[in-house]
Amino acid sequence: MYRTHTCGELRASHIGQQVTLSGWVQKTRELGGMTFVDVRDRYGITQLVFDLSKNPELTESARKLGREFVISVSGSVIERQSKNPKMATGDIEILAHQLTILNQSEVPPFTIEEDTDGGDELRMKYRYLDLRRKPLQRNLELRHQMGFEVRNFLNKEGFFEIETPYLIKSTPEGARDFVVPSRMNVNQFYALPQSPQTFKQLLMVAGYDKYFQIVKCFRDEDLRADRQPEFTQIDCEMSFVERDDILNVFERLTKHLFKTLKNIEFDYNFQKMPYDYAMEFYGSDKPDIRFGMKFCELTPLAKGKGFVVFDSAAYIAGINATGCAGYSRKEIDQLTEFVKKPQIGAKGLVYVKYEPDGSFKSSVDKFFDATTLQEWAKAMNAQPGDLLLILAGDKIQTQKALCELRLEMGERLGLRDKTKFAPLWVVDFPLLEWNEEAKRFFAMHHPFTSPKPEDMHLFDSNPGAIKANAYDLVINGVEIGGGSIRIHDKALQAKMFEALGFTREEAEDQFGFLMNAFRFGAPPHGGVAFGFDRFVSLFAGLDSIRDVIAFPKNNSGRDVMIDSPSAIANTQLEELFISLVKPK
Amino acid sequence: MYRTHTCGELRASHIGQQVTLSGWVQKTRELGGMTFVDVRDRYGITQLVFDLSKNPELTESARKLGREFVISVSGSVIERQSKNPKMATGDIEILAHQLTILNQSEVPPFTIEEDTDGGDELRMKYRYLDLRRKPLQRNLELRHQMGFEVRNFLNKEGFFEIETPYLIKSTPEGARDFVVPSRMNVNQFYALPQSPQTFKQLLMVAGYDKYFQIVKCFRDEDLRADRQPEFTQIDCEMSFVERDDILNVFERLTKHLFKTLKNIEFDYNFQKMPYDYAMEFYGSDKPDIRFGMKFCELTPLAKGKGFVVFDSAAYIAGINATGCAGYSRKEIDQLTEFVKKPQIGAKGLVYVKYEPDGSFKSSVDKFFDATTLQEWAKAMNAQPGDLLLILAGDKIQTQKALCELRLEMGERLGLRDKTKFAPLWVVDFPLLEWNEEAKRFFAMHHPFTSPKPEDMHLFDSNPGAIKANAYDLVINGVEIGGGSIRIHDKALQAKMFEALGFTREEAEDQFGFLMNAFRFGAPPHGGVAFGFDRFVSLFAGLDSIRDVIAFPKNNSGRDVMIDSPSAIANTQLEELFISLVKPK
Repeated sequence: MYRTHTCGELRASHIGQQVTLSGWVQKTRELGGMTFVDVRDRYGITQLVFDLSKNPELTESARKLGREFVISVSGSVIERQSKNPKMATGDIEILAHQLTILNQSEVPPFTIEEDTDGGDELRMKYRYLDLRRKPLQRNLELRHQMGFEVRNFLNKEGFFEIETPYLIKSTPEGARDFVVPSRMNVNQFYALPQSPQTFKQLLMVAGYDKYFQIVKCFRDEDLRADRQPEFTQIDCEMSFVERDDILNVFERLTKHLFKTLKNIEFDYNFQKMPYDYAMEFYGSDKPDIRFGMKFCELTPLAKGKGFVVFDSAAYIAGINATGCAGYSRKEIDQLTEFVKKPQIGAKGLVYVKYEPDGSFKSSVDKFFDATTLQEWAKAMNAQPGDLLLILAGDKIQTQKALCELRLEMGERLGLRDKTKFAPLWVVDFPLLEWNEEAKRFFAMHHPFTSPKPEDMHLFDSNPGAIKANAYDLVINGVEIGGGSIRIHDKALQAKMFEALGFTREEAEDQFGFLMNAFRFGAPPHGGVAFGFDRFVSLFAGLDSIRDVIAFPKNNSGRDVMIDSPSAIANTQLEELFISLVKPK
Repeated sequence: MYRTHTCGELRASHIGQQVTLSGWVQKTRELGGMTFVDVRDRYGITQLVFDLSKNPELTESARKLGREFVISVSGSVIERQSKNPKMATGDIEILAHQLTILNQSEVPPFTIEEDTDGGDELRMKYRYLDLRRKPLQRNLELRHQMGFEVRNFLNKEGFFEIETPYLIKSTPEGARDFVVPSRMNVNQFYALPQSPQTFKQLLMVAGYDKYFQIVKCFRDEDLRADRQPEFTQIDCEMSFVERDDILNVFERLTKHLFKTLKNIEFDYNFQKMPYDYAMEFYGSDKPDIRFGMKFCELTPLAKGKGFVVFDSAAYIAGINATGCAGYSRKEIDQLTEFVKKPQIGAKGLVYVKYEPDGSFKSSVDKFFDATTLQEWAKAMNAQPGDLLLILAGDKIQTQKALCELRLEMGERLGLRDKTKFAPLWVVDFPLLEWNEEAKRFFAMHHPFTSPKPEDMHLFDSNPGAIKANAYDLVINGVEIGGGSIRIHDKALQAKMFEALGFTREEAEDQFGFLMNAFRFGAPPHGGVAFGFDRFVSLFAGLDSIRDVIAFPKNNSGRDVMIDSPSAIANTQLEELFISLVKPK
């Protein structure tokens, strides 16, 4: 037997018992004739003590233990002389009688501590060592618990978890597919699913009424810090529902997760913010509403007064940085630098300080008198002591830049507290987005999203103005997920494909099975998919999803630990009837 | 609002209420001036009634409803005149006031009933319609519940569910991999996991102590009826455990599932049957122990008596078919035909009838006198009225054939009741299997399985005789899953790869990351993987796994519903730097 207890279990009440523990050597130290060894497992750390005077041979062995050696120790639980109230096992220690080295360890390439000295690359290569660190263990435990609570909740609500296939069919709509050559069907390919979208709709056609799945999805995209080629979704679908039926269930799920995992209760209904409103006042379809600082459009008040930057701008808007009138020249310069960064893209920043004495000091004093500035201040609800930050230019770009500036100011003012959570639904998205390059519309969500019934007449006259019956859950400026009411009528689905520029044959070839299914009694249905990785990382207070994934890939899609992807054998290529093309 | 209640919910206590139901039209019938419509959803069936005299227009619409139309109906709950005690809603019906057709349906290609008239191929093509049938809904509900209960149990036991990657690395050991070309890493490939084996071992090295996952796995094998290219495992691993610690946990899991899902309790410990015993007495490493009829070897008693078939055989053994002495000539002939089928492969069948009067009648009366037959009967524990069935030949082939004959007799005698369950552990498997074609040993389970410590010395002298610390869970002759204590010592792992004929470079190239991990303190560990599909199909009383999978593939690995795999676009091939090779 390797252990009677875990390393996190023993308390004062165990004093006097004979126990056996197993785990990793966290550290050893010597004090007079005593050798102390901290032994660690998933459950905690326990201090072992070896007494040189009583058991010289055993103590000699203990002295030779290296960091991360795997040991098994038997001994008696004794009261600790200097108790450690920070450790759950801090009241006791084990006076060792027997020590077995189960496995040795070389010196690990970085320290296995709360904070490690290992760089990113080294930690990825030795991921199994990095995963020994408490922060990662906490993340993966949180992930486990979150998955468990999602299932608990949805099971109680009558949802069935139903597995959909991973080897499916490639479709050109949407992101790029990973494909899998078929050996038994020569020169044909499966694709890995970007989401179980069509299958969950088929399950609704099949009458399953409430489906969910926590499921891996795959996208062969160029990767950013918070993207992975494989990621996990909480994927759900319901029949005979309207939008608010769905929002109700998944708002309750969200509240359930906050309550059970973070002990946070929301005693209000999440706001439902129209997409147009979010864009106008936050410049983003995923506004961070932990703080205000909403946009105030100044175009009518500021244009045509002889300031060429404003006069040539389609859009002028600002935010009110409350209490920041005292910002120094240097701080203002930093903000100007910030908005001029290429990824933000503003040409400059106009500021107006509403001084505590009621006067104004601004970067545009030459062009605007105090009366005009007073008008701006009034429009922006500013009080003496506030700072107005104003951008101008093309509307969409300026909104985007002002959004970034608002978030930056929120950061500087400490308004983006990671322990505070502000969820909302963003609703009424556009159905279609015009793609200038392809000269056609693309679905903003996906081609199965239903238009809002009242906009249906716009299909022929002004498709770009159609609103979708779609919604996103946004928390702290992070899009946790979204969904929509789906099209369940085959004629409307055909019209949608047509609007997306599909020929009848293309639609038939790629989505014929779904259109066929709609011929046999498809119920009204809709659903939602939450990004599980992002949801966990939000709960964990992390900006990146990487450390809530046990074995993530790097930005080139590589697993540097197992060294994958890699070359495969020629016999494998031959069996699959494919050959490699050398890049030029 | 589409519904106030489901179609399975209304009872006598609801009489008088105004309700709205939505669902599919199961059937319509007319009786006098009344039209009755059965409306169906996942939850049940409710009878609607339309009264021509009171509401002619509405009744006319109801008369036009076709099978599988999707409707929404409002009306009052009334007491049913002729109650149907077989239906949960049989006490009531809905007197309809309003009817909305939510979607029409063409006539489905087969009936949506408990038993359908649809053939296999049609049902696969219209899987979404087949899935509407109650038997499939019951299977998928059972599958959902089983997954849920597995998670409940393992969560309580302190296991974390941790997701391992799907895009991993191809290794030639084991079955054939599905591979995925990488676009970002030109001419390199990922592989889809055949199991999370190495990752779960790395999680043990990382100190996670107890891991599980319900996870898809992939094998590009030629398919049989009960195999699918993608299948689901309940995958588990534990640290600081010996074999019986693992068997204990997963025996309790198994009992938990039987108790919660089938209300069956086992008040005994599952038998642990050594592999050698299973082969000797059942001719199989997955014996069906719902019934006895164990093999009795007769070689010493039957050989050398002048019967050339026996005299030239390496192995002679029989089974005692209790109470079957009365079998007719025809029945014996059928059994003889059965054992001579190519897939069984016996040359013939010897029978001995132990007549009720104590005399013997056999197919080998010419060669054996009553005294000898009496000796056989004694060895086989036969009583007057029993029938002895005897095969002879090469040992392994004969055991295999006798195993099939035993199962056939069990079937004929009604001893293989699908509502009875007889679980056991088969233990002490051989570590290695000699492959005559490759002229080398292969791992019987996989290369990470630990030998039994007491057999370690055989590595150099007689590797084929080494027993593995491996075990299978077998229920009713079905291998539900298995596992082993793993190697955690890098030297032993290297020795194992050597025994499997890997050069040091090959081992390093393919499993270097695992060998590296073992350098930094790997704990003793072991685990188990259960076939989820098979486990569910056993509980569902099905022989094939296909109908416990929502969207299975056919025997060519095709999904005929979505028509996959399929050709992909040239642009996709170009981006991946691969080209197709035309088969000759």
